[in-house]
Amino acid sequence: MTTQRIRDFLSTHRPKGPCLIVDLDVVRENYLNFEKALPQSRIFYAIKANPAPEILSLLTSLGSSFDAASVAEIKMALEAGATAERISFGNTIKKERDIAYAHTLGISLYAVDCVEEVEKIARAAPGARVFCRILTNGEGAEWPLSRKFGCVPDMAVDVLRRAHQLGLQAYGVSFHVGSQQTHLNAWDHALSDVALVFERLEKEGIQLKLVNMGGGFPARYLKEVPTAQVYGIAIFDSLKKYFGNRIPETIIEPGRAIVGNAGVIRTEVVLISKKADNDNIRWVYLDVGKFNGLAETMGEAIRYPIETIHDDKAMEPCILAGPTCDSADVMYEKTPYLLPLSLTIGDELLIHGTGAYTTTYASVAFNGFEPLRSYVI
Amino acid sequence: MTTQRIRDFLSTHRPKGPCLIVDLDVVRENYLNFEKALPQSRIFYAIKANPAPEILSLLTSLGSSFDAASVAEIKMALEAGATAERISFGNTIKKERDIAYAHTLGISLYAVDCVEEVEKIARAAPGARVFCRILTNGEGAEWPLSRKFGCVPDMAVDVLRRAHQLGLQAYGVSFHVGSQQTHLNAWDHALSDVALVFERLEKEGIQLKLVNMGGGFPARYLKEVPTAQVYGIAIFDSLKKYFGNRIPETIIEPGRAIVGNAGVIRTEVVLISKKADNDNIRWVYLDVGKFNGLAETMGEAIRYPIETIHDDKAMEPCILAGPTCDSADVMYEKTPYLLPLSLTIGDELLIHGTGAYTTTYASVAFNGFEPLRSYVI
Repeated sequence: MTTQRIRDFLSTHRPKGPCLIVDLDVVRENYLNFEKALPQSRIFYAIKANPAPEILSLLTSLGSSFDAASVAEIKMALEAGATAERISFGNTIKKERDIAYAHTLGISLYAVDCVEEVEKIARAAPGARVFCRILTNGEGAEWPLSRKFGCVPDMAVDVLRRAHQLGLQAYGVSFHVGSQQTHLNAWDHALSDVALVFERLEKEGIQLKLVNMGGGFPARYLKEVPTAQVYGIAIFDSLKKYFGNRIPETIIEPGRAIVGNAGVIRTEVVLISKKADNDNIRWVYLDVGKFNGLAETMGEAIRYPIETIHDDKAMEPCILAGPTCDSADVMYEKTPYLLPLSLTIGDELLIHGTGAYTTTYASVAFNGFEPLRSYVI
Repeated sequence: MTTQRIRDFLSTHRPKGPCLIVDLDVVRENYLNFEKALPQSRIFYAIKANPAPEILSLLTSLGSSFDAASVAEIKMALEAGATAERISFGNTIKKERDIAYAHTLGISLYAVDCVEEVEKIARAAPGARVFCRILTNGEGAEWPLSRKFGCVPDMAVDVLRRAHQLGLQAYGVSFHVGSQQTHLNAWDHALSDVALVFERLEKEGIQLKLVNMGGGFPARYLKEVPTAQVYGIAIFDSLKKYFGNRIPETIIEPGRAIVGNAGVIRTEVVLISKKADNDNIRWVYLDVGKFNGLAETMGEAIRYPIETIHDDKAMEPCILAGPTCDSADVMYEKTPYLLPLSLTIGDELLIHGTGAYTTTYASVAFNGFEPLRSYVI
């Protein structure tokens, strides 16, 4: 899965230490696939997945819009050339002074999930458009979301009504089906709830315009996942089912699915050892771990494909761990990882599918190790 | 628990955004308490707990030695004025080129837990002193360690013999009883294993000199913990029990117990909301969370004391969460946290006991939020 461009970069530049290399050609291809799969929807790239300036510039040039989690991310999108109209302040948890600042930058689309947040926006960004996030059950997601974001549909009606009363534009409803979602009907369940909110507010004379269908589109790690096209067809069928010939404006917020498979982490085996002579399992320690790139192995949630130069040889299960003095810095232990018997200290490994949620998740300097370096090519 | 110096700093300087303030007077007091409690032991401060230059300089001036996890941490200790003799390269997982570099810096004490690491040190730091880490069961620790570090005592004999054969100085044995350890007999169990390794090698003519008793000494969070003095007495009793009148050189590596209670995080309530009208629990969202300072709330392992200006009022259980768009960024949910009913958006909170494992654990820029700022006073 490592592209020829990434292989060429590694052999030509021989970067020192662990690093991520992102291939912009793959990012472009992923973006165009989404555009083709959901031609009626605007794409708001979730900046948090990977905010590298080169990625934001490319996506801006392709016509993407952006989902920002903070004022810093809004500024990154603006610096990449996106206009304020193309940026959504998508975090439901915002300081009032950050809303006010975003308002001065021209941002006019905001996420909410409670009346308290609506009141902040009414004060700090008068007249803005707001969409209310509703809770979904997250079934079928590899990383189901907690109840941290969203409210029940009944409350969303109250929240949007309040926005309308306070002079904001009650603009729509959003949901998130959970990260790495592979159940196609997760979107269908959520859309039926969204349609209910639309109907109830319409009876009160408030016409919502937008369905924000969030992210959750999977990247391919070890298991096969449905393509963007398959998602597009399923989602469009559900939209027709619930909205008939009055399908509202829709947006999607892919992050992982745009950059995940575009990146490869190059790492080195620091140590291979056993804990006792009669141990039947080897520990393999890498120079990347939970604190400098592989945070998403937490709970062994994401199983990245790993490539070695010995992959044709006999394999055995290994425990895979990072380089820090922290005993929690172990990537795969409950389900050990098959690696070649001939793997030795100093060997280089390529960890695939690491373009999303790696660089920014890295700690500042835990144990003195520097954050994950990144090269976007 | 917030010191007057910290209160004065906050009211005088009014720093913007979330931040950690560390009171060096408390660091000094903790260090002197350990010195008094274990007068026979050298103290190697675990730099990873908090590597702020002001802390390292103070500890250097008090006579502390340092446990470093990486070349970067070794350099920090040297820059703080410590001589190479006072620095241990305490990570069992080291690149050979990092060992070679440490050797050029004059570092002569290294941790190992397998023959493979011994061989690297023999090549890269000939003649160095090595101590072998053994596994302990971690019972009684709030954060028990995994099997990531150490080997069984039988293997430690082989590892140290190999070091001796390769011209290194087989210098001692180390262990770690697990973080935030409150069972005093955890040290006793480990020391009985250490004594066994000493005896077996002595029979082969190899005289070990050092017992590295690691860290694990607790900081006080919500629960009371034994004092350094109580630990000192228990540990000295065990040393006498196993080594009689031939007690070897001993070192301890406190980190959390030196800086934990010296720091306070000042944070702000960003949002308080419910998910449904009939919800009986409020969500309280702060501007710090798992990704910018409170990583150790993972699994709700550490329960920090939180101070508000309404603490005399009626309290109710709340779910406490951080500011990012990540649904894993929730601190206390399984066991909700008692907070005042009168708490409102914009209120400031003080999170106590946050001097250790907060700043460096913070992510580089997840969701665009900057790492935790720190003021050492």
